[in-house]
Amino acid sequence: MLRTHKAGSLRAEHIGQTVTLTGWVDRRRDHGGVAFIDLRDASGIAQVVIRDEETAHPLRSEFVLKVTGEVSGRPEGNANDNLATGDIEVIATEVEVLNESAPLPFQVSTALDGQETVGEEARLKHRYLDLRRPAPARMLRLRSDAAQVARRVLNDAEFTEVETPTLTRSTPEGARDFVVPARLNPGSWYALPQSPQLFKQLLMVGGVERYYQLARSYRDEDFRADRQPEFTQLDIEMAFVDQEDVIALGEQLVSELWKLIDVQVPTPIERITFADAMRLYGSDKPDLRFGNPIVELAEYFADTTFRVFQQEYVGAVVYAGGASLPRRQFDAWQDWAKSRGAKGLAYVTFQEDGTLGGPVAKNLSDAERDGLAAITGAKPGDAVFFAAGSTTEAQALLGAARVEIAKQTGEINNKDWAFVWVVDAPMFKPTGSDPDDVDLGHSAWTAVHHAFTSPKPEHLDTFDKDPENALSYAYDIVCNGVEMGGGSIRIHRRDVQERVFEVMGIGEEEAQEKFGFLLDAFAFGAPPHGGIALGWDRTVSLLAGVDSIREVIAFPKTGNGFDPLTAAPAPITPEQRAEAGVDFVPEDEEA
Amino acid sequence: MLRTHKAGSLRAEHIGQTVTLTGWVDRRRDHGGVAFIDLRDASGIAQVVIRDEETAHPLRSEFVLKVTGEVSGRPEGNANDNLATGDIEVIATEVEVLNESAPLPFQVSTALDGQETVGEEARLKHRYLDLRRPAPARMLRLRSDAAQVARRVLNDAEFTEVETPTLTRSTPEGARDFVVPARLNPGSWYALPQSPQLFKQLLMVGGVERYYQLARSYRDEDFRADRQPEFTQLDIEMAFVDQEDVIALGEQLVSELWKLIDVQVPTPIERITFADAMRLYGSDKPDLRFGNPIVELAEYFADTTFRVFQQEYVGAVVYAGGASLPRRQFDAWQDWAKSRGAKGLAYVTFQEDGTLGGPVAKNLSDAERDGLAAITGAKPGDAVFFAAGSTTEAQALLGAARVEIAKQTGEINNKDWAFVWVVDAPMFKPTGSDPDDVDLGHSAWTAVHHAFTSPKPEHLDTFDKDPENALSYAYDIVCNGVEMGGGSIRIHRRDVQERVFEVMGIGEEEAQEKFGFLLDAFAFGAPPHGGIALGWDRTVSLLAGVDSIREVIAFPKTGNGFDPLTAAPAPITPEQRAEAGVDFVPEDEEA
Repeated sequence: MLRTHKAGSLRAEHIGQTVTLTGWVDRRRDHGGVAFIDLRDASGIAQVVIRDEETAHPLRSEFVLKVTGEVSGRPEGNANDNLATGDIEVIATEVEVLNESAPLPFQVSTALDGQETVGEEARLKHRYLDLRRPAPARMLRLRSDAAQVARRVLNDAEFTEVETPTLTRSTPEGARDFVVPARLNPGSWYALPQSPQLFKQLLMVGGVERYYQLARSYRDEDFRADRQPEFTQLDIEMAFVDQEDVIALGEQLVSELWKLIDVQVPTPIERITFADAMRLYGSDKPDLRFGNPIVELAEYFADTTFRVFQQEYVGAVVYAGGASLPRRQFDAWQDWAKSRGAKGLAYVTFQEDGTLGGPVAKNLSDAERDGLAAITGAKPGDAVFFAAGSTTEAQALLGAARVEIAKQTGEINNKDWAFVWVVDAPMFKPTGSDPDDVDLGHSAWTAVHHAFTSPKPEHLDTFDKDPENALSYAYDIVCNGVEMGGGSIRIHRRDVQERVFEVMGIGEEEAQEKFGFLLDAFAFGAPPHGGIALGWDRTVSLLAGVDSIREVIAFPKTGNGFDPLTAAPAPITPEQRAEAGVDFVPEDEEA
Repeated sequence: MLRTHKAGSLRAEHIGQTVTLTGWVDRRRDHGGVAFIDLRDASGIAQVVIRDEETAHPLRSEFVLKVTGEVSGRPEGNANDNLATGDIEVIATEVEVLNESAPLPFQVSTALDGQETVGEEARLKHRYLDLRRPAPARMLRLRSDAAQVARRVLNDAEFTEVETPTLTRSTPEGARDFVVPARLNPGSWYALPQSPQLFKQLLMVGGVERYYQLARSYRDEDFRADRQPEFTQLDIEMAFVDQEDVIALGEQLVSELWKLIDVQVPTPIERITFADAMRLYGSDKPDLRFGNPIVELAEYFADTTFRVFQQEYVGAVVYAGGASLPRRQFDAWQDWAKSRGAKGLAYVTFQEDGTLGGPVAKNLSDAERDGLAAITGAKPGDAVFFAAGSTTEAQALLGAARVEIAKQTGEINNKDWAFVWVVDAPMFKPTGSDPDDVDLGHSAWTAVHHAFTSPKPEHLDTFDKDPENALSYAYDIVCNGVEMGGGSIRIHRRDVQERVFEVMGIGEEEAQEKFGFLLDAFAFGAPPHGGIALGWDRTVSLLAGVDSIREVIAFPKTGNGFDPLTAAPAPITPEQRAEAGVDFVPEDEEA
């Protein structure tokens, strides 16, 4: 090593020792011809005192130095309690400039931690500078620590870590594949895996019994929201298990991971059925850091004369203290609702004197008005938002309103953690209900989780006769309203798998063509199995307390899959194109 | 769990307990109406006794069972000492068939361990069956264990594990890239990385200081030899280090890894210069499990009248006991040499009576004949092979002959381990000398390691004036004649990097276009850094004692990048092609 000590490791006990440090000039101050350099390495900062003006003269921010000197106690009153090395300084006797630095596009000094406001594009373009700053550096270390914790849990439980292929065949996860031309098989393409799903199931058939992998996965989706074209999953599969085993392992992982940030997660983690999650919170990933569940009012308004409420579904959420909101705020809520595809958001205010306000109130009967506080739980000073219409859409709107209200009222404590398992999801949903889905089959039904999810035992006989009401053996883990991961008990019988394909409109021939190898595998003694995958970027971002997964990815891409640092993707040359066989035409098809 | 115990865990201490096992029917024998089933799970085998004929009747090989019964001592004299569970058997009271199995394409029973001769194509097509066999299952576990060992060493040394992008920009490793069309940036393509080289250097510039990753990498090479289109590297980089630090870490990794197979690797590991490796062993990856170095004879034959030896280089290797080889063996050696592009392989035999045999002997002078035993070290009964011509080609031929001789004479002990560091490799080699190279530049010189390798300090000033003799700060670790990995101290100064590009014929503009982000990074205080990468598939195959890396890959591809299991790669649909933007033409270029 070019150094004898790490800068951040020096303490009073080192006083009198001659040390050599290496690192970057984090900050420089000059007093009376003496230069005080905060020298930074990955471990922290040490103050270096350079008395020789000629030596000190050229040193600027982010120069890379090798400094030899004696560790000395700081003069009386000059100790810096904010710095781990604040009791000492290094009196330089030798300073070597290992590398210089041009003036920076933005400051990276530790002294500015948290104060800088640099745009993301600039940060990513110069990510090698951004990573020198304390917060991004912490994120990378936290991500590394999290990986070690997860592996420790899994290795202790006798899992085998297996690397599965990434140049493979289209995997049926329901999103768009990235494809790679295969030069040696002209006209053929590999697909990058959307997950190791099929391979991990094949490993179970192969008797591996307990598999895991921090697996790179790929989905060619439109990069709305916080998505990346490549992402990482902590991918897990187990043979001879039922749902309880996988959930128990998931809870162990979560509780060990959260210990990294000194949070004790109480286990067992609460569970809620998919149906209840939708009914009470209008979401399959309910944020349970706060209450305020949706109140169903269809029965309450069964005989209403108010046309707006004469619907399949009527529900409401309370806005505590909402009665005093100014009118323009309620108008903003209308816009908010319209931006989500709703017509608007009906509301009623409960005045302190017991009267009801808002445009809806006058449309209600006396009885409807009188009972409203009791049935919704609203108190004087509150407001209540209503949604009416199809159950699914109205619940979703109320669920979103519930979260938005909590944000506005400050009900969410950022230090709170609310984990919940969402279980008993439906097996199927109507095809086309999610714009990001690539439908595998050709029927009115597509899989909610994926095509390999087992029906619950009580739906095993009926799921194909009554797909709408079939429940799956699936479980999602939700943290603070964010889906961290999910899994299921899988189908392990060929006949059941074929029936699921049939519901999805995947005929026998097509199934054999696309997934024949899996169906074949099921014919040779596939064990019962199930698993889970944690979205690793999301999990680490939750641990790190950041909103965007980009903060916990070393070299993330921006919205449309562009990397501002390397300027990837980029055009390829005609030679590369020809060589890759992109334009291969079989001889008998040539014009 | 569907079971209470693992099959392989049962011992005499469990006698009397009621247990539930799950697993596969490994073997079935019937005696007097009683079925004896070897039930196999990942932990091993337990004998299950089924007395009820009706229950036992349908059970065939690889059926998946759940068996409940009482653990019982085997009857006197029936214990099986070859089986960890050989003292007990489980008397079944309940047998549930969890899944059936069709007749197998090949047998997987543990009882046949090592006896089966199944073709690789069949094994890979039914890899989920192959993995149930003991040897392939052991390989996967060994690979998993090796990963944990490596990570333990690196985590203990305060390395940060960082995931780098795989949808990225062409990386200049000198092989062909796999490319991926970027739908959201039509006409642009990502490249899959040949290694994380540039990103790990950027992490060093970013102050990460110690990075590692088990990184998936991709090279679109012709799949001659034992190569895979995707492979794994244990990728490591460190800041503020010199060659000694990286070598010390490499030795620690190797010695911890080899403990997995109970081998103590003596450290420090021997080092040899690239020049000596070529001179003595005719290879940059010499197998040092045996001696028999090449003898240089150009000086010895300086005045020879034998035209064949009037060359820049003459050398020889001894074939101990080779004098007694039949003539057809020597003929076969000629073919062997021709298949390697040589004209033939001159040889002399040393008869027990002191005379020389073979076609070359008569062309030598008396003095040349008389001194030959002394200078080559040949003893009566030995043969000596000669090569003459250009130094590089003749050394390579003799090096290959040396290895082939050792194989034929049984000099290689498969239990031996010979590690060696090959250091001081040249920086540059003539362009076009390796058919798999994709030349980055446009000059007569290309990089031996890669363009980011630092010259040795003593060549820093001269490498561009005298590229032929410039040595690099590079080190390869070789085990038993196989290159396990390699690395180098990198260039960290922009001016040096630009000079290297210049030698390779990469002009300023092209360098900025291709690697501008790295050159820019170097301008902002890049620290001195270096690293190493171990070819992980190769490392694990050495540990496992298998010749092919395919044996230690869960789902390997065959020679031309084809996966017999999933039949990847495969054609894509015209819709996929259109959507991926493969045929995108910018508007102003449209016909």
